[in-house]
Amino acid sequence: MSELLNRIRRKSLHDRIRKVEEVIPLFKHGMNLGWSGFTPAGYPKAIPIALADYVEKNQLQGKMRFNLFIGASVGVETEDRWASLDMIDRRWPYQTGKNIQAGINEGRIRMGDKHLSMFAQDLGYGFYTKDNGGRLDIGIIECSAITEDGGLVLTASCGAVPEIVQIADRIIIEINTSIPNYEGLHDIIDPVNPPNRLPYLLSRVDDRAGSPYVRIDTDKIVAIVESQYPDNGRAFSEQDNTSEAIANNILDFFQFEVKEGRLPKNLLPLQSGVGSIANAVIGGLAKGPFSGLKVWTEVLQDTMLDLFDSGKLDFASTVSLSFSVDGFKRFYGNWEKYSNKVIMRPLSIANHPEPIRRLGCIAMNTPVEFDIYAHANSTLVGGTRMINGIGGSGDFLRNAYLSIMHTPSARPSKTDPTGITCVVPHVPHVDHTEHDLDVLVTEQGLADLRGLDPKSRAKLIIDKCAHPDYKPLLREYLEIATKECMARKAGHEPQLLDRVFKMQVNLAKNGTMKIANWDI
Amino acid sequence: MSELLNRIRRKSLHDRIRKVEEVIPLFKHGMNLGWSGFTPAGYPKAIPIALADYVEKNQLQGKMRFNLFIGASVGVETEDRWASLDMIDRRWPYQTGKNIQAGINEGRIRMGDKHLSMFAQDLGYGFYTKDNGGRLDIGIIECSAITEDGGLVLTASCGAVPEIVQIADRIIIEINTSIPNYEGLHDIIDPVNPPNRLPYLLSRVDDRAGSPYVRIDTDKIVAIVESQYPDNGRAFSEQDNTSEAIANNILDFFQFEVKEGRLPKNLLPLQSGVGSIANAVIGGLAKGPFSGLKVWTEVLQDTMLDLFDSGKLDFASTVSLSFSVDGFKRFYGNWEKYSNKVIMRPLSIANHPEPIRRLGCIAMNTPVEFDIYAHANSTLVGGTRMINGIGGSGDFLRNAYLSIMHTPSARPSKTDPTGITCVVPHVPHVDHTEHDLDVLVTEQGLADLRGLDPKSRAKLIIDKCAHPDYKPLLREYLEIATKECMARKAGHEPQLLDRVFKMQVNLAKNGTMKIANWDI
Repeated sequence: MSELLNRIRRKSLHDRIRKVEEVIPLFKHGMNLGWSGFTPAGYPKAIPIALADYVEKNQLQGKMRFNLFIGASVGVETEDRWASLDMIDRRWPYQTGKNIQAGINEGRIRMGDKHLSMFAQDLGYGFYTKDNGGRLDIGIIECSAITEDGGLVLTASCGAVPEIVQIADRIIIEINTSIPNYEGLHDIIDPVNPPNRLPYLLSRVDDRAGSPYVRIDTDKIVAIVESQYPDNGRAFSEQDNTSEAIANNILDFFQFEVKEGRLPKNLLPLQSGVGSIANAVIGGLAKGPFSGLKVWTEVLQDTMLDLFDSGKLDFASTVSLSFSVDGFKRFYGNWEKYSNKVIMRPLSIANHPEPIRRLGCIAMNTPVEFDIYAHANSTLVGGTRMINGIGGSGDFLRNAYLSIMHTPSARPSKTDPTGITCVVPHVPHVDHTEHDLDVLVTEQGLADLRGLDPKSRAKLIIDKCAHPDYKPLLREYLEIATKECMARKAGHEPQLLDRVFKMQVNLAKNGTMKIANWDI
Repeated sequence: MSELLNRIRRKSLHDRIRKVEEVIPLFKHGMNLGWSGFTPAGYPKAIPIALADYVEKNQLQGKMRFNLFIGASVGVETEDRWASLDMIDRRWPYQTGKNIQAGINEGRIRMGDKHLSMFAQDLGYGFYTKDNGGRLDIGIIECSAITEDGGLVLTASCGAVPEIVQIADRIIIEINTSIPNYEGLHDIIDPVNPPNRLPYLLSRVDDRAGSPYVRIDTDKIVAIVESQYPDNGRAFSEQDNTSEAIANNILDFFQFEVKEGRLPKNLLPLQSGVGSIANAVIGGLAKGPFSGLKVWTEVLQDTMLDLFDSGKLDFASTVSLSFSVDGFKRFYGNWEKYSNKVIMRPLSIANHPEPIRRLGCIAMNTPVEFDIYAHANSTLVGGTRMINGIGGSGDFLRNAYLSIMHTPSARPSKTDPTGITCVVPHVPHVDHTEHDLDVLVTEQGLADLRGLDPKSRAKLIIDKCAHPDYKPLLREYLEIATKECMARKAGHEPQLLDRVFKMQVNLAKNGTMKIANWDI
């Protein structure tokens, strides 16, 4: 308790300290809630867990449902448990967990996804809660501390907190006393709506343009609760041979671009997604020839600590620390060393096209699949089943200096070790268009698509990226489609609409995308 | 000649004045050329026409082919005539004309399209001419004048000139003495490559952040040619009942948004595309209740002069003046009145996400078609046949405060007056994703999609936007798809991949998208 009082430096707020069970009655069925948090870090835990316990104990499943607006995914012990207790009606813009995904794909949870930079601002504009006057009923924000003048010091992520506190009628703070005070790590720019916005004066990865605190109207704080739950850290993705081969293709490409004078020797600010390929790329950079590197991204994974330790990474800007439990221990155990080289920003800034394009980021993300003309599917397996959401991939891929997508060339189906090709004639759902992507990479090779027309792109993507099991089929498709479309004088980007998804239909029926032929 | 000398205020350049026939030998087969120009305005005419005459006269068809990089489309007497003479190998990023479109769709011309803001910067990065060291061989720039210190005063568009003159080895200037000197209308920011870029200090539509001239290395000027060709002005699109109904739906929506407090009374800076619907919207605004309007767009059409005359438009920022011949007469005849209310910018600035998002533009564009989940096809009829290119639609729709697409609900096929529905289950080519669009409009009604999950979007789009002839078919598709995908626990965004393009296939075979049923 004394640590809690120390953390709440604005003394007049001490009388708003409550036990977690005291805040439960504030929550009513149908409310719009905004939480802090981003890719399991910095999210409220004490209150969501207590609410879930309350619903479970009182058998209120389906009778206390909420609309959840959170920067991105949060720990499964919160949103996914809520889904299992039928506590979620709407959820924007990104999520993880088996129960929540089942709820979305079976039609019980209404999810929508939007580019994260736009989610934040559109939430602030009141677009998602139009029927509620553009307001959120309650914002729940995890904090490290509250300053003398009532500023919120956030924890391991910034998420959409600046927008949430602006439109929330009431705010509940969870002060997490089990982790260090993150004071000084954040750079918060107050959201201003058009037409009165000013430029964001960020020209370098380590520039600051805001405040280390989130400024709020403290009258809106209705309760402050102590929390000692740690973030449910992201499990570390193991590297594998395929990922290493992909990473090597990317690192070779970087060296070539430096040689050709199209990249500086220390590259450009890197954005890297999550997962084993991203880890392999960062691991490769730690051993590689480039130094003076900078990172401008959404999430820092454990491998980024290795990159700092290698001496090759100068500075990182991120929305969240998406470390494993061990990663957090390492970060906290070397606070001085790491914290001076990191700035955390809200997603409305970190993912904003303005700094991404100005800095000239190199964006790297993994799709579900891409097609021979360089459209990519990042969200819907089979074109219909939601995984997590588009997240920030579109923000970065649209605006980067170099937009790179990387994936294994094939994945196993239940019955065939290469039953799913990740290079298809036409992705069944498009999240990133041919107008957005520069480079596609698999363990087979790298296709540099800059300056190529669609048919030249298709040839190159099949040659460089497709798995050998699928090359003949894809070449045959391109040949038939080109012949038929040219004959109709409609062959800029040849497709056969009467059989374009034959591989996907075959997968559903026969467990593999290896079809016998392209006959209708 | 004396007017030409007056326009070239840097006297040391007078000895580079040449007759047009003298520059023909500078052009060699296979060269990479950059031209000024944007949506037929401000493009070079004397030299392209002379080159076409030369090729025709000497029967050099197919023996003098060039790669053409131009901000957007230029007059048919230039690029389209070049296409008819087989003078184009590659063409980026947007074009108009029957011959060039035939060449692209029959595989003789390699076209690629990219968001215009990225085309400009990627051209400057050397991405499109990697095999030529990132250089253009010759840049041909139409100018009004050359200043004392060698600055280029452009004419009726800015296009990609700043990037072209940076990477061109040689520059040829066409001074157009038949039109007024446009001095003072342009605001040119010198392109700087990452990582050394600074913010663009543009916070209002009428802000200036650059220079009225394009600064160049005058040593690169190898010839200056006089031109007296006028721009081949865009024909005025007649308004029709369908367009007026669409415009009324949009204007009603604006009034509602103002009432709800989500738009200021003078709206936000407007981006409006070309064509009859755009004209109807602008025409409606001239008669409507909003004043103090501002425009931040790519092209000004004739109706924008009416909007100025109505007293309701305060200021317009544009890339080009895309007037008809009569529109240009009106503009030139009232130079003082109009020119003080217009700034012209290069597409790397006008289309850049940074000002578009900061200003909070309202973007309005016409697609070929959209689907029930709000993906839109702007470029490829039937998913394969190129029309013009994506242009700046993605730049604006991705970054606007409100992203609106408008189209008639149905179009005639050869045999059926409503044989083509513009609301389909799945667009065969995606240029704009469900993550980008807020509002879809037809003459039937307006669907406000903000905050809706995909299945709710689909219901609303069918209800509000689809033509009555297609509503039952679309509802049936959604019902079957939802049932089938839900059963597979994959129903976030239901689709039937085995028959998703059945309407399009039927159109090709039977001349209408009205199918009997959804049976496979």
